[in-house]
Amino acid sequence: MSKPLEGIYVALTTPFAGDDISTAKLQDNVKKHNRTDLAGYLVLGSTGECVSLTDGESEKLVAAVMAVAAPGKKVFVGTARESTRGTVDFTNRFAGSGIAAALVRPPSYFKARMTREALRTHYLALADAAKVPILVYNIPQNTGITLDPQLVIELAAHPNIAGLKESSGSLAFLGEVVREVPADFHYFLGSGHVVYPGLEMGACGAILAVANAAPEMCAKIFTLFKAGKKEEARGLQFDLIPLNKMVMESYGISGLKYAQDLRGYYGGPARPPLLPLEEKGKREIEHQIEKLGLRAG
Amino acid sequence: MSKPLEGIYVALTTPFAGDDISTAKLQDNVKKHNRTDLAGYLVLGSTGECVSLTDGESEKLVAAVMAVAAPGKKVFVGTARESTRGTVDFTNRFAGSGIAAALVRPPSYFKARMTREALRTHYLALADAAKVPILVYNIPQNTGITLDPQLVIELAAHPNIAGLKESSGSLAFLGEVVREVPADFHYFLGSGHVVYPGLEMGACGAILAVANAAPEMCAKIFTLFKAGKKEEARGLQFDLIPLNKMVMESYGISGLKYAQDLRGYYGGPARPPLLPLEEKGKREIEHQIEKLGLRAG
Amino acid sequence: MSKPLEGIYVALTTPFAGDDISTAKLQDNVKKHNRTDLAGYLVLGSTGECVSLTDGESEKLVAAVMAVAAPGKKVFVGTARESTRGTVDFTNRFAGSGIAAALVRPPSYFKARMTREALRTHYLALADAAKVPILVYNIPQNTGITLDPQLVIELAAHPNIAGLKESSGSLAFLGEVVREVPADFHYFLGSGHVVYPGLEMGACGAILAVANAAPEMCAKIFTLFKAGKKEEARGLQFDLIPLNKMVMESYGISGLKYAQDLRGYYGGPARPPLLPLEEKGKREIEHQIEKLGLRAG
Amino acid sequence: MSKPLEGIYVALTTPFAGDDISTAKLQDNVKKHNRTDLAGYLVLGSTGECVSLTDGESEKLVAAVMAVAAPGKKVFVGTARESTRGTVDFTNRFAGSGIAAALVRPPSYFKARMTREALRTHYLALADAAKVPILVYNIPQNTGITLDPQLVIELAAHPNIAGLKESSGSLAFLGEVVREVPADFHYFLGSGHVVYPGLEMGACGAILAVANAAPEMCAKIFTLFKAGKKEEARGLQFDLIPLNKMVMESYGISGLKYAQDLRGYYGGPARPPLLPLEEKGKREIEHQIEKLGLRAG
Repeated sequence: MSKPLEGIYVALTTPFAGDDISTAKLQDNVKKHNRTDLAGYLVLGSTGECVSLTDGESEKLVAAVMAVAAPGKKVFVGTARESTRGTVDFTNRFAGSGIAAALVRPPSYFKARMTREALRTHYLALADAAKVPILVYNIPQNTGITLDPQLVIELAAHPNIAGLKESSGSLAFLGEVVREVPADFHYFLGSGHVVYPGLEMGACGAILAVANAAPEMCAKIFTLFKAGKKEEARGLQFDLIPLNKMVMESYGISGLKYAQDLRGYYGGPARPPLLPLEEKGKREIEHQIEKLGLRAG
Repeated sequence: MSKPLEGIYVALTTPFAGDDISTAKLQDNVKKHNRTDLAGYLVLGSTGECVSLTDGESEKLVAAVMAVAAPGKKVFVGTARESTRGTVDFTNRFAGSGIAAALVRPPSYFKARMTREALRTHYLALADAAKVPILVYNIPQNTGITLDPQLVIELAAHPNIAGLKESSGSLAFLGEVVREVPADFHYFLGSGHVVYPGLEMGACGAILAVANAAPEMCAKIFTLFKAGKKEEARGLQFDLIPLNKMVMESYGISGLKYAQDLRGYYGGPARPPLLPLEEKGKREIEHQIEKLGLRAG
Repeated sequence: MSKPLEGIYVALTTPFAGDDISTAKLQDNVKKHNRTDLAGYLVLGSTGECVSLTDGESEKLVAAVMAVAAPGKKVFVGTARESTRGTVDFTNRFAGSGIAAALVRPPSYFKARMTREALRTHYLALADAAKVPILVYNIPQNTGITLDPQLVIELAAHPNIAGLKESSGSLAFLGEVVREVPADFHYFLGSGHVVYPGLEMGACGAILAVANAAPEMCAKIFTLFKAGKKEEARGLQFDLIPLNKMVMESYGISGLKYAQDLRGYYGGPARPPLLPLEEKGKREIEHQIEKLGLRAG
Repeated sequence: MSKPLEGIYVALTTPFAGDDISTAKLQDNVKKHNRTDLAGYLVLGSTGECVSLTDGESEKLVAAVMAVAAPGKKVFVGTARESTRGTVDFTNRFAGSGIAAALVRPPSYFKARMTREALRTHYLALADAAKVPILVYNIPQNTGITLDPQLVIELAAHPNIAGLKESSGSLAFLGEVVREVPADFHYFLGSGHVVYPGLEMGACGAILAVANAAPEMCAKIFTLFKAGKKEEARGLQFDLIPLNKMVMESYGISGLKYAQDLRGYYGGPARPPLLPLEEKGKREIEHQIEKLGLRAG
């Protein structure tokens, strides 16, 4: 059974030229991605350094992507703020803009107070007030908050909560959730390490940072899987893991952007406090890109 | 030896009336605090729900406090943003405003990348660019980032880094830092549980949430200590602990605001996602306030 | 390709009658398990409350299992101690006893000192000295130590390290390891939530607590998978998750033992400090057992 | 008010000669310590690598210390095991031996099950059954379990629970507990960083690893404090911090043993899995020992 938003999305990096964002470079990247089998784009995700952008920059980036995204490519936007009100307000700036959904990580600064009840109240108030569909977002490595699978199941009953992005990479989490939610709920994987087994267990797609540098491989895992070519899909999954580890775990966004540069996309620098990539990291990423046969002509 | 900024500060709560901030209520609170022995005010601290405010609200709150703070009361402002550039920009909005220092917690969203080197680079770039003195802020319970005492010692050498607020409450941290920093470095305690022993070990003051509800007690620990009346200071410290635990650990900002209401200040509701205080918490806080003989006439 | 030790193992609980272990009850349980398709037994695992047993009790339990295990059923034994020397000594008590391998979790008391180098040195010294094959054991929820996948890959090169039990349930971990180890390395899953997707990604089996109460279901996931009946294997996996959650996460060993009692095995009480199961837990477990159609005649 | 067990204790290291314990070296060390103002000895503490010893070795070490401890020096023994029954049994092996108390850390392997109720039940059952007084032990850095101050207050009501060793070093913890327990309850500090401020807040002593290498300094903080010479006590506290950090945090037991060697005690090697100290660590520890003027003639 296919779902309206299913498929592989790239969690777009945000290009900087000097201190400023470059919407032109972002559009160049999106135009290249338009030619792949990706289902669409996430703008202002963690990978997009959303927390390091002003509201003004954020809106420009979304508009830039909307302007060039090919017909049929869906656009998600990260709209979380720490307060419920701030999240509603920022989410609704994109009402009527044509985005497919807003991706919202939980508030996390007042960690000790973010009980299940506080998180439920937050998400339900947001879902009630939001004029675009909401995707819940579990990313404990950045927020320090782990959503309870049972809470996700409760939230999934709300008609304006369209799905989940689960970035801890836990298939135990998926296993608890995926059969207990309505048929039109979208379970997106957020970890490039487990795309194939996650699809096999019922996820409907993935939103991936590594797709900035390897969009074809990421998209192909999905298309092979859907075509029933599971052996090949699994093989690609294994091929992807070392590169994914490098850009997610070992070197982070600066590493991912360097990999983009090697692939003919614009990566460029990350915004501080993220540090530039050191030589050792460059060598390792070059090696991985070569090994995968992805070096740009 | 006394230091220019020494003493006890209240980390002001932010009054909300309905969904909006109320600068009038905030000014009422500050006017009452003006009559105490507090050294001054922190606006936009964690207790001020800074992460739940827009930039516009934030600037109004600071202006409101500056307008009514009594002469001699110093004003600190929390100005952290996730990016270095954002932090510099927001800090420098208060250049020339008369604030005594900006309090800056570390960036914390990209936890795995916030190495000692990244944090050093961030704080040094900020200190170079900021037009007000900087106070470094260690609050791992909210950020998930623990600053290394040795890093604090390094940062203390910068002429524009005026001090530290240390909210984990670790006197081991204090013990490693306080003798290794320049004589004019301000070590502020951020935990109401350890004010007296912290002063005894060389801290020059404290910035306290509980002071919203018990400003006289907090200030008196300091004045007694400075007057050499250590037995009495320690006694007050012990008296303060149960109330401090209630408003910091058990019930958080909603509990603190309820205690303010009981004391004749305006507390009011916290902004969601913080939940309202339940009846059980109200009863316990009433009981503590009574026990301390602080019930408003 | 099949591996000599592949398949599903039950991590046996340890029966207590009053304060003492009951080897007779354990043998009764094993005799029942002998009639299932389980590949074999783990004695003295975490589920066996190994840390709560004396050395003398431990040896009796292993002997009891060896005496009644059906021909072809392999026996693993948990032999970890905190010191390298203690682990070697206790492991080698089972040399010549016919056990198939010793399962060894990392030392964990001196957490801050258990660097990758310390752990490597420990496991290599053990593998050199041990007279039985070693299975490395990753169980961070109990030890507070997470093994690095790269360390596992290094250790896998040792001829006396036969495999790994990975109980965090991370398929990202599996994805990094399973293609980088020698062909005869056994990757066992330790979480009942991810048996099917783990097999699909190249694990050769699982060692499961929940198999004490549902050995047939656990074994069947494996046999269906090997027979290429993946749809059915996945279905059973989903059926297993709620029971597995109950006995692993919600109620622990006391819950698991109650489920055993319901199935006609001997569960009985856990040894303190583990608390007895309360009525609410009993009702929930009964409900799950009923739902799965597993209630003993 | 003085308490029967008050004062500074050394948490003795365990000397190894080759692979074996050396009770002779231990007795040499104790004889040297007998000439200091230490109140007594802890045998089989974390610093004594208790988890790396067999029961037989453990009993020999205690007997060796009892045989040579000077009259008036109290002896504590670490007797924790993971099960309640094991802890009772091992504790009562020392009944009638003349030890002053048994120090018992909480069970920690089944972390998720070690609820407040489970820990209370464990400690109360132990206190009921033990034939020596019990000291509760909070050491979250090794156990991963943090005792609740309120639980400690409850336990303190039991007539056979004589006190607490608190090794997280939190004076907030102390502040919550020390006034709420019976007058004869012993609150011992377990961190060498906070001895002076802890005494100032009402602790009755400390049990310290660093005292193996600097017993005179540790004891003198206490005697100066009791004599009302607080300035001097605080000065010594600050002097102690860098050495304490080195042997506790930076280099652990191997570092501490090297510092003992430099002071004319027998330190020797730690038992694996603890690694030997590297040259860099040796140089730093030598430098600290020199700086403190403690180098053995």
